[in-house]
Amino acid sequence: MSRIAYVNGQYMPHRDGAVHIEDRGYQFADGVYEVFAVNKGKLVGEQGHLERLNHSLSELRIDWPLGRRALMVVVHEIVRRNHVRDGLVYIQITRGAAPRDHAFPQQAQSALVVTAKKSGPVDKQALCAGVDVITIDDIRWQRCDIKSVSLLPNVLGKQQAREAGAFEAWQVDNEGYVTEGTSTNAWIVTMEGELVTRDISSSILNGITRLAVLEAAAEAGVQINERPFTTAEAAAAREAFITSSTSHVKAVTRINRQSIGNGHVGELTAQILDLYLDYVDEHGGPQVADTWN
Amino acid sequence: MSRIAYVNGQYMPHRDGAVHIEDRGYQFADGVYEVFAVNKGKLVGEQGHLERLNHSLSELRIDWPLGRRALMVVVHEIVRRNHVRDGLVYIQITRGAAPRDHAFPQQAQSALVVTAKKSGPVDKQALCAGVDVITIDDIRWQRCDIKSVSLLPNVLGKQQAREAGAFEAWQVDNEGYVTEGTSTNAWIVTMEGELVTRDISSSILNGITRLAVLEAAAEAGVQINERPFTTAEAAAAREAFITSSTSHVKAVTRINRQSIGNGHVGELTAQILDLYLDYVDEHGGPQVADTWN
Repeated sequence: MSRIAYVNGQYMPHRDGAVHIEDRGYQFADGVYEVFAVNKGKLVGEQGHLERLNHSLSELRIDWPLGRRALMVVVHEIVRRNHVRDGLVYIQITRGAAPRDHAFPQQAQSALVVTAKKSGPVDKQALCAGVDVITIDDIRWQRCDIKSVSLLPNVLGKQQAREAGAFEAWQVDNEGYVTEGTSTNAWIVTMEGELVTRDISSSILNGITRLAVLEAAAEAGVQINERPFTTAEAAAAREAFITSSTSHVKAVTRINRQSIGNGHVGELTAQILDLYLDYVDEHGGPQVADTWN
Repeated sequence: MSRIAYVNGQYMPHRDGAVHIEDRGYQFADGVYEVFAVNKGKLVGEQGHLERLNHSLSELRIDWPLGRRALMVVVHEIVRRNHVRDGLVYIQITRGAAPRDHAFPQQAQSALVVTAKKSGPVDKQALCAGVDVITIDDIRWQRCDIKSVSLLPNVLGKQQAREAGAFEAWQVDNEGYVTEGTSTNAWIVTMEGELVTRDISSSILNGITRLAVLEAAAEAGVQINERPFTTAEAAAAREAFITSSTSHVKAVTRINRQSIGNGHVGELTAQILDLYLDYVDEHGGPQVADTWN
């Protein structure tokens, strides 16, 4: 059965989904996106995704193509039509199609694409198997808090990781601090048992899974420190993991080919995966409020 | 008469030109472009554009969708079908459509879009009328030598200029040096009569018009210095101008609302416009070789 996409007002076979060659997403990366996890038939972190989407759109002054409620009707319909019980929903909103000119067009109507993809249910064993991470220079622009489709450096970084036999590349700023992965947030557990992930700024994207993990860990009494950490600190960490809507909580067992801790999934990492999954089951996602205001 | 576009092997009405929603240009800004000026029916700087395109593609490891000769057949055909005597040709090449994943796909075939737009012939008087420029922080990524469609910061900068009543925004790096405009190269003439534009690095795009101006000016014995200059130096300059395939050589008469020189087009600027146009008439564009090797 074929996948169904929503493109600018119409449901259609995914293979037929197309946008105009002068859509500003295509010509200028002038657009934003969100990826929702679908877990046991439910969207994860709906409120958080919508708040962040609002942040991205308002920072770029792109209009909502539909009201939030109408957008969520489309999202739920796409989940339904694609029979997604576990998987993800991808939403892309651009400033729309207009004759090519860098400045904002007077007339364009923002464009909306919604697609969905099935996957298997969360596989704890796979998430705990442990992946490799490499570190690379962070060469991205200075507004990484906006979830824009301006992802070329992320593409190059992910490819570099892939070719190094790694799952992800952690990007490192000019001062030697890890910002985040190319499509995930980066976490370490220090030898003192402190859970560390970079604090929010324009250097990173505030992940929805990141927020849910922070809330779940806090609720469980885990000591958390949101602060930058260096590559050296990461190399000396007891545990490491990454988070995202598609990777959930995924153990990192090697950084730049050096084992982290004993080279197996960390104790706290495995616990946080459980805490996170329970938290999402209970609350549907992070109980964010005002994070992006 | 309607415009004709070339999209992935087909000529079609411009309004019908479309790319798949999973074209990586749309989802990841994973593509590059070129804008050729057409001047009196001739393409300007054909060799330079192709060399630069080759640089962009090879840095991103995107395959040429067609051989250079076949691509130029399409370009000339698009010029012909759109009856462009003066105007421009836009070429966009992306890594192609593939299921969404940051890393390079195994299978995708690079995608090609070619469009054209008519304009009036070069209007020297308009180019000498003088425009305003503002300066803004350069927040772009660190590979601006690649002419990628990852243009969101340029869009925001151009819009900021527009709202300040200016034509262009000059982007300024962390050390206070001007890199370039959001879609043009930046030039000043110092009080000592020295022509200055930033030297080539990954901080700027090596403009085809920039190269032609450098060659034309050198041929005429103008003293040239390719080096970074500060905002303060620009404010104290005797003349200023910008270059691009669409702006040619355009006088800048105010920077951040302060008049440059006497507030009118500079003497050397007007001379360089003439030299540039003559040079293009004679040579067809810059006689570049090995610039991007």
